[in-house]
Amino acid sequence: MTLLSRINNLLDSTDIALTVSAHCDLPCGVYDPAQARLEAQSVKACMEKYNASEDADFKVRATFIKEERSDLVKHHLWVLWTDYFKPAHLKAHPNLHDLFWSATKTAGEAKKTNDVAVADKLLAEIDAIAEIFWDTKK
Amino acid sequence: MTLLSRINNLLDSTDIALTVSAHCDLPCGVYDPAQARLEAQSVKACMEKYNASEDADFKVRATFIKEERSDLVKHHLWVLWTDYFKPAHLKAHPNLHDLFWSATKTAGEAKKTNDVAVADKLLAEIDAIAEIFWDTKK
Amino acid sequence: MTLLSRINNLLDSTDIALTVSAHCDLPCGVYDPAQARLEAQSVKACMEKYNASEDADFKVRATFIKEERSDLVKHHLWVLWTDYFKPAHLKAHPNLHDLFWSATKTAGEAKKTNDVAVADKLLAEIDAIAEIFWDTKK
Amino acid sequence: MTLLSRINNLLDSTDIALTVSAHCDLPCGVYDPAQARLEAQSVKACMEKYNASEDADFKVRATFIKEERSDLVKHHLWVLWTDYFKPAHLKAHPNLHDLFWSATKTAGEAKKTNDVAVADKLLAEIDAIAEIFWDTKK
Amino acid sequence: MTLLSRINNLLDSTDIALTVSAHCDLPCGVYDPAQARLEAQSVKACMEKYNASEDADFKVRATFIKEERSDLVKHHLWVLWTDYFKPAHLKAHPNLHDLFWSATKTAGEAKKTNDVAVADKLLAEIDAIAEIFWDTKK
Amino acid sequence: MTLLSRINNLLDSTDIALTVSAHCDLPCGVYDPAQARLEAQSVKACMEKYNASEDADFKVRATFIKEERSDLVKHHLWVLWTDYFKPAHLKAHPNLHDLFWSATKTAGEAKKTNDVAVADKLLAEIDAIAEIFWDTKK
Repeated sequence: MTLLSRINNLLDSTDIALTVSAHCDLPCGVYDPAQARLEAQSVKACMEKYNASEDADFKVRATFIKEERSDLVKHHLWVLWTDYFKPAHLKAHPNLHDLFWSATKTAGEAKKTNDVAVADKLLAEIDAIAEIFWDTKK
Repeated sequence: MTLLSRINNLLDSTDIALTVSAHCDLPCGVYDPAQARLEAQSVKACMEKYNASEDADFKVRATFIKEERSDLVKHHLWVLWTDYFKPAHLKAHPNLHDLFWSATKTAGEAKKTNDVAVADKLLAEIDAIAEIFWDTKK
Repeated sequence: MTLLSRINNLLDSTDIALTVSAHCDLPCGVYDPAQARLEAQSVKACMEKYNASEDADFKVRATFIKEERSDLVKHHLWVLWTDYFKPAHLKAHPNLHDLFWSATKTAGEAKKTNDVAVADKLLAEIDAIAEIFWDTKK
Repeated sequence: MTLLSRINNLLDSTDIALTVSAHCDLPCGVYDPAQARLEAQSVKACMEKYNASEDADFKVRATFIKEERSDLVKHHLWVLWTDYFKPAHLKAHPNLHDLFWSATKTAGEAKKTNDVAVADKLLAEIDAIAEIFWDTKK
Repeated sequence: MTLLSRINNLLDSTDIALTVSAHCDLPCGVYDPAQARLEAQSVKACMEKYNASEDADFKVRATFIKEERSDLVKHHLWVLWTDYFKPAHLKAHPNLHDLFWSATKTAGEAKKTNDVAVADKLLAEIDAIAEIFWDTKK
Repeated sequence: MTLLSRINNLLDSTDIALTVSAHCDLPCGVYDPAQARLEAQSVKACMEKYNASEDADFKVRATFIKEERSDLVKHHLWVLWTDYFKPAHLKAHPNLHDLFWSATKTAGEAKKTNDVAVADKLLAEIDAIAEIFWDTKK
């Protein structure tokens, strides 16, 4: 039994739906905030590794990998905002626009710093978006 | 409470670790087979939508979106194979190379067909890889 | 004298500022809604050429070039929304979020149709955003 | 009234055409040297911000963002050269090839330096190309 | 002994230099017209497979893969033109600009047709460029 | 006579086939280990130029250009492994998987160092793969 089916089994015994979901304008209907979250975790890891290192070249690499990963966070969030969420969701969650605006701005901030608190803020904002996302799936 | 924390709580009461993880050569240490799986679900959804449609333009779009998503499946799997897995993992799971070779070949096959069975085979192969992946995390 | 300087000269005699502007998280400070507008014009041209053609291969090409150009429209708009606009701008233009949400959704719609009215709606929405953009530059 | 319509109104009263234009091999017929110019302005801004900063990480980021923007300048110019300009244009403007060769080489030089004079040379070369471009539109 | 060393051995006994070479603005100094040629061969193969097939979906895929490969041909040629060739080369080969302009235009034409003669013209033009390229290496 | 035809003529007089070959899932049938090798040569040149330089900005640029080129090496090798090689090839060359795994891992290592020995190891591994590749073409 795979991990995903084990998770599904666990969830089946509760009332939480684990739907993984779409991300193209077909639309294929598969969207999941986990994509943005994974990249944000990578952003945080880049910061931690940067801070722990004394090697100038390594710090250069951590800096531009973090830049790329932050761009991916922004991209995944923008797609979710425009492609997944519908007016009815906005009515139920009036802070939706502000949440996405703030989270994508935080992803931009994360490029400019190695302060892990910024990455933690980004992760918390993505979690708040995920909370709403999964709420709409109920 | 976010879905992820809800899942984590559920898992805490069992013995399964839900670690999400790295994907760059820094290495940031964040890898997760879920990235490949999400794209494979999109591949399958493109096939289903293609099969259900009578609209020639829609079918064209489904075809090239499927092509892109299949490429992403291959990319995420290749990264996992080369960057995450180490010789010790191979020793414990001697079929590792064949699993990745087969799964990436299946992703290539998925470009050439709208037979959902191919997408299901791809998903099953990714699940088998995920099984090993999470086993190495124990 | 180049066209741009000729335009600038004309504008100098009026009170309209023609500032072209930034688009990266450095931030370099160069942003311009013209980038999204050019791609939207390309989207419209793809539709018109599609509608005027009888050649199946040409229509396929028009379809996926339109897909790419619509993605570029979305990308340029998202960057403008997150990176250029600040809370003070939102206060002065409370419909900012809705404008961007609607325009990027229209860009998604443009992928699914060759109805030129959709491209015209997209252009009008970009113009409305440009109006606000240039207003903030005064 | 949007800025673009305001500009158009101004231009209507003169004899300058403001045509924005094509950039794909469909061809969609939309080309505009403004795309290359915007990226070149970003290149210049990166240099200025680099020169004004004492922060090593910021300088690293300015360096690779400048690298990307210079690549975009080259790309937009190459597309214009190959896709927009026709043999008749070359006959009327025999220096066309040299102008593009020099401008794209200057974009390459801009990667290697933070000397703003190089960015200014690049902008002037793009303006010279724009001059010819708009001349062909008359 | 690898094939490349076998070729090198063969060439050692003649007077032809087989230097493979650079392609970035570092510059790394590694350029080779073989990159453009490989993509052009793929363009030709896509045409041949398109012409031999009766399967509509396959033809769609052949069409957009050809589009991508043609773009790669153009890109590799543009890089060679701007980054490798120097004024001294132009003096020795005054048709250099025209050769590149024509070859990249032919790559654009190849997107619009499945007439193998266009791919053959493209290959011949790349060979003519390669001839000059290797001549400059003597 | 072009260089390629000169090489072909030379090879014609021996028994070595010089087939250049395919790289897409059409499949177009054009694959060639030379693509990976060229990028690996660029990786090595970046290291050499890095080591020879005292200029901090230049070293930053060499570092991220090397990162990009190493990624291209990995990509070209992965495509070859999954798309070109078939089970019959694996039977004849049982070390195929290990060769590709090692070579792509070495490409990852090359990102982290400017030790030219790592680039030489990468080139040797690509040559070993090329040896098998051309053997399958006989």
